[in-house]
Amino acid sequence: MRPVSIVATGMTPFGVHSELTIRDLARQAGQECLAGAGAGPGQIEALYLGNFAGPSFVGQNHLAPYVGSALGLQGVPCTRFEAACASSGSAFFHAYGAVAGGLYDLVLVIGVELMTSQSTARTTDILASAGDLRGEVKAGATFPSLFAMIARRHMYEFGTTREHLAAVAVKNHANGAKNPLAHLRKEITLEKALSARMISDPLGLYDCSLISDGAAAVLLCASESAGRFTDKPVTVRGIAQASDHVALDEKQDITTFPAVKAASEKAYRMAGVGADDIDFAELHDCFTIAEIVALEDLGFVPRGQGGPATAEGFTSPHGEKPVNTSGGLKSKGHPVGATGVAQIREVVEQIRGNCGERQLKKANIGLTENLGGSGATCVVGIFSA
Amino acid sequence: MRPVSIVATGMTPFGVHSELTIRDLARQAGQECLAGAGAGPGQIEALYLGNFAGPSFVGQNHLAPYVGSALGLQGVPCTRFEAACASSGSAFFHAYGAVAGGLYDLVLVIGVELMTSQSTARTTDILASAGDLRGEVKAGATFPSLFAMIARRHMYEFGTTREHLAAVAVKNHANGAKNPLAHLRKEITLEKALSARMISDPLGLYDCSLISDGAAAVLLCASESAGRFTDKPVTVRGIAQASDHVALDEKQDITTFPAVKAASEKAYRMAGVGADDIDFAELHDCFTIAEIVALEDLGFVPRGQGGPATAEGFTSPHGEKPVNTSGGLKSKGHPVGATGVAQIREVVEQIRGNCGERQLKKANIGLTENLGGSGATCVVGIFSA
Repeated sequence: MRPVSIVATGMTPFGVHSELTIRDLARQAGQECLAGAGAGPGQIEALYLGNFAGPSFVGQNHLAPYVGSALGLQGVPCTRFEAACASSGSAFFHAYGAVAGGLYDLVLVIGVELMTSQSTARTTDILASAGDLRGEVKAGATFPSLFAMIARRHMYEFGTTREHLAAVAVKNHANGAKNPLAHLRKEITLEKALSARMISDPLGLYDCSLISDGAAAVLLCASESAGRFTDKPVTVRGIAQASDHVALDEKQDITTFPAVKAASEKAYRMAGVGADDIDFAELHDCFTIAEIVALEDLGFVPRGQGGPATAEGFTSPHGEKPVNTSGGLKSKGHPVGATGVAQIREVVEQIRGNCGERQLKKANIGLTENLGGSGATCVVGIFSA
Repeated sequence: MRPVSIVATGMTPFGVHSELTIRDLARQAGQECLAGAGAGPGQIEALYLGNFAGPSFVGQNHLAPYVGSALGLQGVPCTRFEAACASSGSAFFHAYGAVAGGLYDLVLVIGVELMTSQSTARTTDILASAGDLRGEVKAGATFPSLFAMIARRHMYEFGTTREHLAAVAVKNHANGAKNPLAHLRKEITLEKALSARMISDPLGLYDCSLISDGAAAVLLCASESAGRFTDKPVTVRGIAQASDHVALDEKQDITTFPAVKAASEKAYRMAGVGADDIDFAELHDCFTIAEIVALEDLGFVPRGQGGPATAEGFTSPHGEKPVNTSGGLKSKGHPVGATGVAQIREVVEQIRGNCGERQLKKANIGLTENLGGSGATCVVGIFSA
């Protein structure tokens, strides 16, 4: 296995793009990425496309060659990866493996989703298809209600409060307000978060991530040739994907995600670092409770301490371990299939020092955690210059 | 890159499985495959799942960990690949790369589709989502009509006749009648094929493949350790995936598929063989015309000669180049996501000499060609003992 670097990134604004098609969105992010590296489509040896539910949201299957040909790629493998909200994290993981294993020298990874074309009710149904349809979903569960059960149990086990959950939302909205590509650039107060209408008790409106359109892209190459494309390559130090049961009721304990633990343990080992060595992270805050559980599963804080640590500023930009400087899924937005690559883009641009108003002072080693469903897939990456 | 072998296969009967879920089907094929190698789920390092449209046919996304946990796989990467009718060919291609590149020693590849739960009209719509929805499909095209245009143009350019098309159907039905796992085990006459009702002129009922439920699996391992699992490993000599435009109207010439040419040229080069060295093949006969075009694009016959060659018995079991001894998509059935792996299974079991009544005398080097959409994805594999 040889070292692999990211040499360019691209990202559309996240938000409502009713004027664009899913193909347009993916092409925009891909073209920005190629331009950033000064690379032409003829140099790209494969396209790895993450997309959760294009067929359900816009009716289009077979998306990878559809996007590939729009970018001018021809003849090379163009493949779609679907792993619920971890679709593009999974695409990235497989792209990394192919370059590390010597199959290709230069590959493009794009994540894309166009969600706002459907009603909220239909969107909730489509998202629910990432759960166990014959079990939990048949019984009436949607993703807000599944994560509400996780939050409620976390409260019971560890004394986590609604204020702890709201602290995640307040921090991520403050971060997202500084990100020009974020969907909802709006700071909120703790009071506003706590008094918002209830979605699924104990999760209120501000505990839930956004329904967004968007795309993100990264260009991966063998580190030995990264210098051809950029002066600021960022190297993949560790990367792993792990799986677990889809249904919440098949899990032993719903306050921890074994796939996050498995993926992060592998990624730490591969990178030769521990949780304490990570300077900052982009975590999968599909709901505020998910960021709190991730802090614990990744070993950033002891079990049960995710809530208090967040309330005390541990994960704020000036805290010990800044989390979701991009605004996270909460404020940047969550076009499902784009999220994994968008997380990686934020970490790469922080390490490169390109994050403007939200740039961290210390951003040497960054981690991404991309979760699919209620923990059935997880991809963890560790990156540094 | 190190050599990679297939050490076991599994396959459900193809047909109507109204009593089973998509998860049941995939598990059955996977378990048969593991049992064939004497391997336990704890030994499997990754699951590569090919599935075209589980979300549309049965409402279930995030299928790979859902199937993985049913098989007892835990913690390892379980990933779904979607590339229209080439979904499991693509899953296999990526699994091969991961083992060849040294990421894993032992991985399971499963293809699955459950289609018969929907009406024929809804199924036709779901299949059409692999075309360009905003172009050709919006204009009224379905896959039978897209391939009808290909057939009509092939007739115009090369003098191909309806009798040539029917000869593909007659041969594949005769082959499928000898395959205990085939969906439609029924011989047909040329007259029957020609007099069947028209689906999309010039394609009649017997020019179209079947709507089926089913799953197929293969177990891939580094060749150096194949002996632990079987006395009869089959080695992947060449494998490639290529892409092209999704929309038929974006192609220069609709009587040839550049992705088939690109993938087969790479696979031949990798295997160090030419078209003449291939003893037999499983080709993607989604429609009879597709087998004829494939014969030409793979270099088995000169351009325009696919029809006459078929009518003359070139591809019959006793001909020079037997094609689709399994019955093909035409008679064995076409559970879309299962097809690519099912093709590989037939080639592997022919090489091993396990095909009973349909066993070929000379089956040393076999080829598979798995096509997605109207040629936007193609995966070609070459196999020998």
